[in-house]
Amino acid sequence: MPEISKKGRFMPESPIRKLVPYAEAAKKRGVKVYHLNIGQPDIETPQIALDAIKKFDQKVIEYSHSAGIRSYREKLVGYYKKNNIQIDPDDIIIGAGASEAILFAMNSCMDTGDEIIIPEPFYANYNGFAVNAGVNVIPIPSNIETGFALPPISDFEKAITPRTKAIIICNPNNPTGYLYSREELELLKEIVLKHDLFLFADEVYREFCYDGKKHFSVMHLDGLENNVVLFDSVSKRYSACGVRIGAMISKNKELMATALKFAQARLSPPTFGQVAAEAAIDTPDVYFENVIKEYVARRNVVVEAINKMEGAYCPNPSGAFYVVARLPIDDSDKFSRWLLEDFNFNHQTVMFAPATGFYATKGKGMDEVRISYVLKVEDLKNAMICLKEALKVYPGRTN
Amino acid sequence: MPEISKKGRFMPESPIRKLVPYAEAAKKRGVKVYHLNIGQPDIETPQIALDAIKKFDQKVIEYSHSAGIRSYREKLVGYYKKNNIQIDPDDIIIGAGASEAILFAMNSCMDTGDEIIIPEPFYANYNGFAVNAGVNVIPIPSNIETGFALPPISDFEKAITPRTKAIIICNPNNPTGYLYSREELELLKEIVLKHDLFLFADEVYREFCYDGKKHFSVMHLDGLENNVVLFDSVSKRYSACGVRIGAMISKNKELMATALKFAQARLSPPTFGQVAAEAAIDTPDVYFENVIKEYVARRNVVVEAINKMEGAYCPNPSGAFYVVARLPIDDSDKFSRWLLEDFNFNHQTVMFAPATGFYATKGKGMDEVRISYVLKVEDLKNAMICLKEALKVYPGRTN
Repeated sequence: MPEISKKGRFMPESPIRKLVPYAEAAKKRGVKVYHLNIGQPDIETPQIALDAIKKFDQKVIEYSHSAGIRSYREKLVGYYKKNNIQIDPDDIIIGAGASEAILFAMNSCMDTGDEIIIPEPFYANYNGFAVNAGVNVIPIPSNIETGFALPPISDFEKAITPRTKAIIICNPNNPTGYLYSREELELLKEIVLKHDLFLFADEVYREFCYDGKKHFSVMHLDGLENNVVLFDSVSKRYSACGVRIGAMISKNKELMATALKFAQARLSPPTFGQVAAEAAIDTPDVYFENVIKEYVARRNVVVEAINKMEGAYCPNPSGAFYVVARLPIDDSDKFSRWLLEDFNFNHQTVMFAPATGFYATKGKGMDEVRISYVLKVEDLKNAMICLKEALKVYPGRTN
Repeated sequence: MPEISKKGRFMPESPIRKLVPYAEAAKKRGVKVYHLNIGQPDIETPQIALDAIKKFDQKVIEYSHSAGIRSYREKLVGYYKKNNIQIDPDDIIIGAGASEAILFAMNSCMDTGDEIIIPEPFYANYNGFAVNAGVNVIPIPSNIETGFALPPISDFEKAITPRTKAIIICNPNNPTGYLYSREELELLKEIVLKHDLFLFADEVYREFCYDGKKHFSVMHLDGLENNVVLFDSVSKRYSACGVRIGAMISKNKELMATALKFAQARLSPPTFGQVAAEAAIDTPDVYFENVIKEYVARRNVVVEAINKMEGAYCPNPSGAFYVVARLPIDDSDKFSRWLLEDFNFNHQTVMFAPATGFYATKGKGMDEVRISYVLKVEDLKNAMICLKEALKVYPGRTN
């Protein structure tokens, strides 16, 4: 039997999926599980996007342009203009989700053994993309005490080696919900220019900014046109995760010509998804106003509840729909599994993503969980009651 | 400005796309261009697939399972059973086209510097996938004189090194149309077992077999369950290239568990494409009977016309919708460009894919073009008249 690859063996398993069998077993025992472990919003996809699919009337579902349907990219230019980002259709390559866009960028910018710096905790699938591209992840710790703000720039400076090719940030952040400030991005700009690096920014949660704060994009940084690569997605913006439409955006012409070769090799992004995404650009503002109101209410339920629990702490982040909370527990993997296997409160329990999966540094995140507040307020309240009761009886409680 | 990656620079450009600007310029001059350069069929997508999309009534377009929607994979089992291929739903991972499936397999089986053997000429994008995965392509020449049959197994034997991890065939073949026989596949089985290699088979043209010949799949080979990986796609079968739905299929459990980790990192394949593809499985047989009748008529037009041209030769292959023809020309790249830039016959011309792009060996394919017979018979006849007239006046004619 031929051996599988080393990179295949090294490829990390999703930190969330490991727990899925325990959740299924719990449901079989009649326990209701509140899924706060996933990034799948329950918000409805805008009707305008669903209608566009119903109206699709071509007789042959053809390949689209490898960079994406032209009319879609032209319309996207308008979307970005509304966000004060000036780009052309040729600065955009549509991917099968931000996932594929990140792979295009990593492969275009980085060779086997090159290094990418990422503030941790970070979106776990960056690990997978890095393995895919043969790239080494160099984590720089951020801390719950600062609400997971950008680590000191001196920490980046120390981590840079001759193999460093890029820094990636997710803004607003998954898993922490942290919204980077203009000042933080200006600091990143300096170090990126100084060391001639690429600055990757995953801004798929751009619309999800709260407390009156405004999103500051890497595309707003002047003089960084050749260094900046933006990743975007319609998955969260329009609650349309299944359409698999994202984008890689850069004003670096050489980079985009290179990325286009990777895009051409896989022929084209999904046609139906592009049709839905193009229509979704006309989603009325009131849709987002309602969504943001809803998420703020949800976040407040979670943050307030956790901060009332003895020994627990949760920052109050201004973006995305995640928080990373510190709990008085010995091991977040063990705790999350115990919640599904050994605990219920009135036949209910709750499922978290252990934060260990979001750290590259071994041993970090043991007393932290990521909570996706993607359920309705009533359900979130019940989930928080479960957590409170669970902490009272968890055998691995630490204080 | 940060440098792009070595693999990015090494990544080949699509051999077809290079000519696109010349085709566009020709059209602007009022010249009609017969596109025999692409694999985009003009056949209509089955109505049943288009209807399924119209009936989609979920309010949230959610992520599907990373391996693909369960009901789709279950239904696919029935499709394969009809083709005498016995698999389970868990032997299938749905990808965004066969393209993504091939990347999953390459990354799961092969590390940077490993080698994959491919009979040439071969589907040009295998080069791109190999660069993507850091894998080296080792070509073994097949010849127009044998109709591009499997090269002697001794040629494979000579090409095998300690870094060889896999052989890939495309059956029926793109670009040659050649349909491999059971006997040829049995020979591959022996060598694969002897050297403990993976055997990758791209069978996306399975339905397109002519002259009463039946397709023999790698999945029909006994005792090769741990070595065989099948790639499939609905793009050609249902003329649905834009849905971006393909599959990686293997009975090797360790391999599939590894590939699933790569699939999980990108979350899920496109939902709408899966909905269309699932419905398409019920496409009535008469659809395929008509399609095959049409393609045979088209192939016959092309093959007969070319073999009547002095100094030209075209085999009569039994599969797919391509032929590779030998023409009395000095350089197929130059000739293909000349057809678009400097030639027209009654304001018409024809666009081919130069065969050089399908060979990894430098200098091969200079007097060959790939012809996709994806146009109606009337158009193909006109295109062949253009070719005949062009060969009379082409300055680089060789005999």
